[in-house]
Amino acid sequence: MINITLPDGAVRQYEKGVTALEIAKSISEGLARKVLAANVNGQVWDASRPITGDASLKLLTWTDTDGKNTFWHSSAHLMAEAVESLFPGVKFWVGPPVENGFYYDMDLGDRKMSEEDLAALEKRMNELAKKNSAYTRKEMPKAEAVRYFTEKGDEYKLDLLSGLNDGEITFYTQGNFTDLCRGPHIPNTSFIKAIKLTSIAGAYWKGDEKNKMLTRVYGVTFPSQKELDEYLQMLEEAKKRDHRKLGKELSIFTMDDDVGPGLPLWLPNGTIIIEELERLAKETELAAGYKRVVTPHIAKESMYLTSGHLPYYQDSMYPPIELEGQKYYLKAMNCPHHHKIFAAEPKSYKDLPLRLAEYGTCYRYEQSGELFGLMRVRCLHMNDAHIYCTKEQFYEEFKAVNDMYIKYFKIFGVDKYVMRLSLHEPSKLGKKYVDEPELWKETEELVRDVLIKTNTPFVEVQDEAAFYGPKIDVQIWSTIGREFTLATNQVDFAQGRRFKLEFTNQDNKAETPLIIHRAPLGTHERFIGFLLEHYAGKFPAWLAPVQVKVLPISDKFLDYAKTISQKLKKADIRAEVDDRNEKIGKKIRDTELMKVPYMLVVGEKEMNENKVAVRRQGKGDAGVKGVDEFLNEVRTEIEERRSE
Amino acid sequence: MINITLPDGAVRQYEKGVTALEIAKSISEGLARKVLAANVNGQVWDASRPITGDASLKLLTWTDTDGKNTFWHSSAHLMAEAVESLFPGVKFWVGPPVENGFYYDMDLGDRKMSEEDLAALEKRMNELAKKNSAYTRKEMPKAEAVRYFTEKGDEYKLDLLSGLNDGEITFYTQGNFTDLCRGPHIPNTSFIKAIKLTSIAGAYWKGDEKNKMLTRVYGVTFPSQKELDEYLQMLEEAKKRDHRKLGKELSIFTMDDDVGPGLPLWLPNGTIIIEELERLAKETELAAGYKRVVTPHIAKESMYLTSGHLPYYQDSMYPPIELEGQKYYLKAMNCPHHHKIFAAEPKSYKDLPLRLAEYGTCYRYEQSGELFGLMRVRCLHMNDAHIYCTKEQFYEEFKAVNDMYIKYFKIFGVDKYVMRLSLHEPSKLGKKYVDEPELWKETEELVRDVLIKTNTPFVEVQDEAAFYGPKIDVQIWSTIGREFTLATNQVDFAQGRRFKLEFTNQDNKAETPLIIHRAPLGTHERFIGFLLEHYAGKFPAWLAPVQVKVLPISDKFLDYAKTISQKLKKADIRAEVDDRNEKIGKKIRDTELMKVPYMLVVGEKEMNENKVAVRRQGKGDAGVKGVDEFLNEVRTEIEERRSE
Repeated sequence: MINITLPDGAVRQYEKGVTALEIAKSISEGLARKVLAANVNGQVWDASRPITGDASLKLLTWTDTDGKNTFWHSSAHLMAEAVESLFPGVKFWVGPPVENGFYYDMDLGDRKMSEEDLAALEKRMNELAKKNSAYTRKEMPKAEAVRYFTEKGDEYKLDLLSGLNDGEITFYTQGNFTDLCRGPHIPNTSFIKAIKLTSIAGAYWKGDEKNKMLTRVYGVTFPSQKELDEYLQMLEEAKKRDHRKLGKELSIFTMDDDVGPGLPLWLPNGTIIIEELERLAKETELAAGYKRVVTPHIAKESMYLTSGHLPYYQDSMYPPIELEGQKYYLKAMNCPHHHKIFAAEPKSYKDLPLRLAEYGTCYRYEQSGELFGLMRVRCLHMNDAHIYCTKEQFYEEFKAVNDMYIKYFKIFGVDKYVMRLSLHEPSKLGKKYVDEPELWKETEELVRDVLIKTNTPFVEVQDEAAFYGPKIDVQIWSTIGREFTLATNQVDFAQGRRFKLEFTNQDNKAETPLIIHRAPLGTHERFIGFLLEHYAGKFPAWLAPVQVKVLPISDKFLDYAKTISQKLKKADIRAEVDDRNEKIGKKIRDTELMKVPYMLVVGEKEMNENKVAVRRQGKGDAGVKGVDEFLNEVRTEIEERRSE
Repeated sequence: MINITLPDGAVRQYEKGVTALEIAKSISEGLARKVLAANVNGQVWDASRPITGDASLKLLTWTDTDGKNTFWHSSAHLMAEAVESLFPGVKFWVGPPVENGFYYDMDLGDRKMSEEDLAALEKRMNELAKKNSAYTRKEMPKAEAVRYFTEKGDEYKLDLLSGLNDGEITFYTQGNFTDLCRGPHIPNTSFIKAIKLTSIAGAYWKGDEKNKMLTRVYGVTFPSQKELDEYLQMLEEAKKRDHRKLGKELSIFTMDDDVGPGLPLWLPNGTIIIEELERLAKETELAAGYKRVVTPHIAKESMYLTSGHLPYYQDSMYPPIELEGQKYYLKAMNCPHHHKIFAAEPKSYKDLPLRLAEYGTCYRYEQSGELFGLMRVRCLHMNDAHIYCTKEQFYEEFKAVNDMYIKYFKIFGVDKYVMRLSLHEPSKLGKKYVDEPELWKETEELVRDVLIKTNTPFVEVQDEAAFYGPKIDVQIWSTIGREFTLATNQVDFAQGRRFKLEFTNQDNKAETPLIIHRAPLGTHERFIGFLLEHYAGKFPAWLAPVQVKVLPISDKFLDYAKTISQKLKKADIRAEVDDRNEKIGKKIRDTELMKVPYMLVVGEKEMNENKVAVRRQGKGDAGVKGVDEFLNEVRTEIEERRSE
């Protein structure tokens, strides 16, 4: 008998050679029907693979990232089976899961595949899926595998083999398709209930443009038709809400070849949103006792050698500037500069917690191919801060940061969010993780405690912490259900020591502070990209570049319109007059398109009565109101940062 | 007879060979006594040099920069005469005027000069000055000059000669001293009434550390003892007000070796001042119809080739970052980025004037030896803006910018300022200046007109405009009378064309806008450095990092003190409590040292009556007041940005 430890700590005994699927069945049949794979001692396995010794076990389903990835990887194999049946002689390169689905790269020889072929492939995949074929795993000695692919004349798989050693080589078969594959896979093809092949693209072998161009087919699959339908609908909506499209239509940002890729220029409308976000963060942080600092965007190599960013993070940094025999780097994060400010003057326990905040601009190198609108950029503005505190202060400080995240979610109407708590792996202390077993245990417990006590939804992930402490990645969902990774919240007990940061404690001894890294709004770039989609460009009044547009029915009422606009501006409301010589219908349509929250239509009647006819964006007529009444209402809405 | 045109346009006739000094005498004897040199047809000449043809003439006195520089250059010669009499055999390199005085570099052979020798030198200079020796000019063929210095064995002057051509070589003699010198000089030594030699330093020949170390003696001279006394007193006061000293004492900024020279890190107190300046500028600019933008700190080489910063300004830029086969430069100014924003969307005359403002951070390379606290830095934060307008709008726009400067001067209590208007030189059109004779004439007249109509004090300088248009350099004086160059205000009719900026005019044709570059507060770095000296660190309440400090007489009143502090904070007043266990006298002294504008002393009586005993920084007791009364008073003082 072997001991199987489940995630809740319960230990059950099973026969040696039991599979995760059998264990699931022993718990409930319903559960077993959902099991896609299993985490066995920290590794993702086939649910049907025999377990031969004591193990910790987590059953993986569709709601687990690893479960979903296994599902999509198996779907790639299913697609390959379909391709092989329709395009015999095809050779395959690799077929991994991606963010939303999977792809497979293939060499079709002289043949071409077109968008039209996708429907036939989908049909074939559905037929194959219904056959309920099991994914079976087989180990093979390297020599035998090489012989197999040499006979087959498959240079791609031979290339993959060349990087593998004996004992690492496994094959997976489902139906008529066999592939060299590390696995794992789902139990059988019948799990795949809904299939959509989304696109075909060319992709150089190994990403190298000197190599042959392969055909890449993308697809996505789901365990039910309903989920696929929802996903396709979300995609459709996301297309309308594409932040690049809206960013252009609403004059939010622009890119320029002479400035460079991944370096957005913020137009006046976008800058208003940035400044409103800054104002929100400044107010929030002032109330929370933060102090603000300003630091340069460059620093010498020596600083990043101290921080350890060099050489470990070098690939994500811009190359250096060489000056006077020194190398200077654009900062990829603000922490080292803040540590220097901490160190600039002697500190005692009375100075802690010290919370240093900055609207810092960082520069990170992302490959050109990875850049994407505001979502993946090289220039990152962020509402960053570092909190220096004692161990005793840590719990309260971390809780306050967590509360701040949740406060922001409320303001922005983010109803769905999950904190992904990444923990260390004790066996890797001193290697992947700084060797402070007690501090790890202590801070991880404190962080978990904050999340539990505040009812914050969270998941725990083993062995994904930062080198210097546990971290929380914040995932949020936009109104149309798309997931965004917003920000990171990290505990750090290594940098303080590396930078020799010290404070004098109550016993008059030098002590190193704990550091919390946090940036609840993430980067402006990504957050505004998210907000564009989230609001479909219809920003709440407090964020809208133009909050009120006054539309005179004819030139006769232009002066009255200007008087109203002036009055609103004096009350710090961003108002404009549409002074064009156009029909009122066109003025309303154009203002709707620019998604201005309020339109004030003014004509004879309104002018005589000192009133305005109010229209709310997307909702139409909101009645005739006195100018002051409207002003007070909208000012309150703005001041309270109401979502609607 | 020749025609002499004076600055007011009057033309007078004189005999050929007349000197500027003679012309001055023909106007008034009093004037002649003040004439140090003359600007003849745009060149600075000896006042005693014969004028042989029609000429424009400006007499230069102590109030002209060129007059002052001539005075100090002649003083350097006088010092050299004194040195030669006390250190026979000395060889001289160069002796130019500098910002405040002059220096001369010399090779004393085996001898050394010490601070003690300066008194003897000063004495000798005073004796020589009283001799009333004329500075006389003599032209010499190169061969003769070379022979002269070869015989003398003077390798330094031979080196200077090697760079000169026949016809360019002149010698100047006063008393027993003769020097190879381009001139010009003052009429005679008796103008020099007050002398102070300030320091001795080592200086490598030609600034190259591989060369011999020469001795550099610095001095300053004045036309009266009174002016020297005032200058020395100002220096004394400036030492107390040194922005580096105050910057450290008041925790305004810090420098760090790992960040790099010339790259200040702003501590929380300094950041508060930065943010108050930003807030002032944002409010002012919002009211003036500016729009805000945000741009990256880098751009590709191609952008700076278009702007012409490369190669012309390359020496003042950081070296490039090389990435993906492209060169990226840190921006040394914001204009090219703003031009790109102008160009991002089509513009019509209805969009003009477009005023784009940004709190931009620029990076400029200054040699390590030139760096000086906040005054000469490599990282420059500035309240920058560019105004794009039509020719018809130019006058109003330029006037508005001028008004903004003057508004700021009032707020900061800058009583003395001068706008230095730099004009083009018509003979250099198409070479030093963009070839637009009409635009030059027109804009120079408009700019002059603004300055005259607004009663703005200004001086005109020929042949010092920027390549692309006339410019104004703003000089301001701190309360202790020290001069600072604050900011530049430029007209630009070249960049618009280089960047192909266009708007559709009322005739539906493409037209290039005029551009005004302006940054009325200069850089944060220099401006805060100026303010530290100007206020001696005693910032007015609206700028003070801590505005109010509450000092409980003992711990018994700590809670009351905290209640008051909380109340003030809620009213957006930066308040703190001195909660240390110290005597009230020490608390007051320490708070005075930190130059906090208001101290509120609270004890039994104040607590019982809900009052506070107010002390004003530097002024002492200001009476007992009700808490609300004090709060309202100080809030008004802050909101109105009162200087006192």
